[in-house]
Amino acid sequence: MRDAYHEELDSIGDGLVEMARLVGSAIGRATTALLDADLNVAESVIAADEKVDEIQRDLENRAIALLARQQPVATDLRIVVTSLRMSADLERSGDLARHVAKLARLRFPESAVPRDLHSTILEMGQLAQRLVAKAGEVIISKDVDDALQLEADDDRMDELHRTLFQHLLDDRWKHGIETAVDVTLVGRYYERFADHAVSVAKRVVYLVTGEHADEIAPASPPPVAEGA
Amino acid sequence: MRDAYHEELDSIGDGLVEMARLVGSAIGRATTALLDADLNVAESVIAADEKVDEIQRDLENRAIALLARQQPVATDLRIVVTSLRMSADLERSGDLARHVAKLARLRFPESAVPRDLHSTILEMGQLAQRLVAKAGEVIISKDVDDALQLEADDDRMDELHRTLFQHLLDDRWKHGIETAVDVTLVGRYYERFADHAVSVAKRVVYLVTGEHADEIAPASPPPVAEGA
Repeated sequence: MRDAYHEELDSIGDGLVEMARLVGSAIGRATTALLDADLNVAESVIAADEKVDEIQRDLENRAIALLARQQPVATDLRIVVTSLRMSADLERSGDLARHVAKLARLRFPESAVPRDLHSTILEMGQLAQRLVAKAGEVIISKDVDDALQLEADDDRMDELHRTLFQHLLDDRWKHGIETAVDVTLVGRYYERFADHAVSVAKRVVYLVTGEHADEIAPASPPPVAEGA
Repeated sequence: MRDAYHEELDSIGDGLVEMARLVGSAIGRATTALLDADLNVAESVIAADEKVDEIQRDLENRAIALLARQQPVATDLRIVVTSLRMSADLERSGDLARHVAKLARLRFPESAVPRDLHSTILEMGQLAQRLVAKAGEVIISKDVDDALQLEADDDRMDELHRTLFQHLLDDRWKHGIETAVDVTLVGRYYERFADHAVSVAKRVVYLVTGEHADEIAPASPPPVAEGA
């Protein structure tokens, strides 16, 4: 039974990694759709999110079945419960990629993002994609240093978010209110996407060390958008 | 043992209800802080969120201990797992109330919200508070009709969110970019707060019926802010 148990546990881990892969691809393509005003890519991201939701429901059911059949205790139990939490983070990340794609669709054939912000948004998109890829890796490796590194990488997202706000609040902003609203929301979506990747990494740290990541590494500064 | 088990399960339910009460109070006070530019109230909301986080950590540990000691199966198991999910929704709701309060603090002694939007924001705040209060009630009552009603009530939040956007995108908007950014984020915070209350209610529906709420009642329309 223990073998069957560990096989099942591994397959839940594989499901999480697959979710991380899918949402990483989704945020990358959503960024393309947003900057290139590519309607087809936007539609594909919106449609693909259903798959992420499916995997999450499946993982939840399998985790519950595992708890019922194998009744794990101690660390094994914590791993299963933590997997449920990670799947929720990744599912939400998929929603955020979908929001970016929906905004691209809403503004088509225009880009919702003005030219002079493309490089900042592109970097936010690429960073978000890297963060969730790293999160997928630490789910497998359980490497605490790599997991903590993710939080440091997220500081860059906060910097980019501040850069976005500096543009928005610059007297020379000439793109009007609607674009300011779009850019505000897009910035928020990328920042939250990154937060969920960091959250996944923190749960790995907690699993391995029994300590919450914040007790080990200082948390990244709160983003401007939260009025901090 | 079963009695000890059900006592423990009830106490987890009580913890969830206490969380709902605290975050309901928080969003109400955060709204006051925002509209009245009341720094003391803002600070009290920001400080109080730590208590919500504490309760959530405590609930998580107790739920895991319960799984380990009692090894529940079937519905009992699903109740414990669902409680973990609900506590995450409520913890996040507390964060969103804190974000509103931080924005109030950031703009003090001004109000971040222009006069002509006070009534809309006030209604969003009151609705958010009612929704989480109802969510707390259905956690106890397990009343599916009340739980489904919550989703219908959330439609009003989407309407209010649209009203906010109509003001923002009106050519006569005279409050500038910074205020537009603030109002965009505030609207998003209230809308997400309501989403989490609806999510709690949906989990009750799932617990009782074994079906996802969306399969029973149509989901509320996606908010404007998500570009839908």
